[in-house]
Amino acid sequence: MKKGNTVIFENPPVITCHAAVGGKRESEGPLSDKFDMLLTDTKCSQPTWEKAESVFQRYCMEQLLQKSNTQLSEIDCVLSGDLQCQCTASSYAMRGFEVPHLGLYGACSTMAQGMAIGSMLLQSGMQKIIAMASSHFCAAERQFRTPLDYGGKRAPTAQWTVTGAGGVVIEREAAQGVKILSATLGQVIDYDVKDINNMGAAMAPAAAHTLLQFFKATGKRPLDYDKVFTGDLGFVGSALLKQLLSAEGINLCNHADCGLLVFDRESQNVEAGGSGAGCSACVLSCEILPSLKRGTMKNVLFMSTGALMSQTTSLQGESIPCIAHLTELASQEEKQ
Amino acid sequence: MKKGNTVIFENPPVITCHAAVGGKRESEGPLSDKFDMLLTDTKCSQPTWEKAESVFQRYCMEQLLQKSNTQLSEIDCVLSGDLQCQCTASSYAMRGFEVPHLGLYGACSTMAQGMAIGSMLLQSGMQKIIAMASSHFCAAERQFRTPLDYGGKRAPTAQWTVTGAGGVVIEREAAQGVKILSATLGQVIDYDVKDINNMGAAMAPAAAHTLLQFFKATGKRPLDYDKVFTGDLGFVGSALLKQLLSAEGINLCNHADCGLLVFDRESQNVEAGGSGAGCSACVLSCEILPSLKRGTMKNVLFMSTGALMSQTTSLQGESIPCIAHLTELASQEEKQ
Repeated sequence: MKKGNTVIFENPPVITCHAAVGGKRESEGPLSDKFDMLLTDTKCSQPTWEKAESVFQRYCMEQLLQKSNTQLSEIDCVLSGDLQCQCTASSYAMRGFEVPHLGLYGACSTMAQGMAIGSMLLQSGMQKIIAMASSHFCAAERQFRTPLDYGGKRAPTAQWTVTGAGGVVIEREAAQGVKILSATLGQVIDYDVKDINNMGAAMAPAAAHTLLQFFKATGKRPLDYDKVFTGDLGFVGSALLKQLLSAEGINLCNHADCGLLVFDRESQNVEAGGSGAGCSACVLSCEILPSLKRGTMKNVLFMSTGALMSQTTSLQGESIPCIAHLTELASQEEKQ
Repeated sequence: MKKGNTVIFENPPVITCHAAVGGKRESEGPLSDKFDMLLTDTKCSQPTWEKAESVFQRYCMEQLLQKSNTQLSEIDCVLSGDLQCQCTASSYAMRGFEVPHLGLYGACSTMAQGMAIGSMLLQSGMQKIIAMASSHFCAAERQFRTPLDYGGKRAPTAQWTVTGAGGVVIEREAAQGVKILSATLGQVIDYDVKDINNMGAAMAPAAAHTLLQFFKATGKRPLDYDKVFTGDLGFVGSALLKQLLSAEGINLCNHADCGLLVFDRESQNVEAGGSGAGCSACVLSCEILPSLKRGTMKNVLFMSTGALMSQTTSLQGESIPCIAHLTELASQEEKQ
């Protein structure tokens, strides 16, 4: 059933497995003991950071298959994406796996985008899919800003791209796991922010837009959920999101941002917090899904937020269009 | 119903409208009078080629809405992609449209990928979606090879990226149009080709793999169709595809390649033929769908083929992984 931009699943698909692989800085952060695998050599013995990111995805795939005791042949397709030009981290990672692949580009919104599309694919004959996203600090810095060797100074509004990959197995039906009750697809929103060192400000309006669309379509409010998670708005974007929603009469008092959960801003020198397609993917897997499975949370909104610029568009003086996709998650016992 | 990697639609969705916008070289080719719009100023009065490509997509969207007499609010979502880093042609084009957007990256396989995913989304509550893809010769050359100003010599195996955008409206149900009977999702295949001036050779194995998967799953053969279309294998890749299939005992005698239909190799100086995400998208709209609607063809296989490298991976000495997604199309009267 569809209400506005929200697809509500009559038979909600179930997240039955999750995995996250993190890098060095992630291993020093508050979620360090919750990752399935931590690689303090963020180059993974590869000659380049770009290749290393593919290794993160490969390890994440292997973790998912192993933890869920699944043969690759049981997976109907893998939906994945990343921040590299032409999504090469994902495509190159998939060379080792004989499984259909659907490449996505939603920048840091990729994790929720993949879960949303994947949930819908499960309504049309598929039984089991994987959604996955990754990012790599070193690859992203030279992709979007300047090579690390340049030693550029970081602005206080800048965010630190998570080096990691996170993914989930979603099944059409399952007795145990976390249900995806609905998915809200985002629109491209551009508030004319041009500062590539302030992604939070650029993305907040897209996050607000998708949340408002969801609340309007479903009649729900923030307090109907244990928590409302955003992907990587960071310190700056989180404050702006609350302001934007407040102006619409919505008090987002139970908000948490994955970018503020994955690192400790006080001690880790990450300026406004974490970011990257891997940010919401890893926090989903390390923190959100385990809490829903344990029952310490019953239901949440999980929204990933993406800034859709490239180095080319930035250098050409363009503003930064953004998008946010949302999924509504509930522990298996929770009735809608 | 799912057989192997092929999803067969019990209630096949229907392509009810199609549109294509081409550039200067397309206006001089064999399909010139079949485009909905031709822009001989391939910069579209924009300061850069990248921005111009977004204008091609915008015009294509406008043509689709106008031709199908559809309000934007009736569209459940737009699935689109292109070849630019971070898919900016698509994201920036969508700024002007208040409609949910799902960004795809499948390189030149994007058109079939979008149609495949879109068809499945229509099984889960959506009524009407748009799938679209674009490419731009000038943007692609500097993206993947060298800036045009460099004046690099073109190899005989090189292909000419189509400057254009093509798209379709797909509906859950409709009395008139072209049915999508099934969709086969491709796998990432890498035969270790490293020559970025020979995309056809790189992509042929992926095309062969997807076709073989489809024939194996369904028991069909090439001659069950009026024609088997590939996206942009060009002269070199088409010959290799036939060889690869012949080795598996399949005679692909009714094959046509969109890259060989969109340009005249004799007179247009395009070396091995056309390519780009816009290539199969435009030929689908200009040639394939009109023939199916007129009834001069009853059913076809339409497969887009994508080479998934980036300039970064090429410069890092990597090979070129490829993918091909397939859709099975039939005129409305045709029974499966």
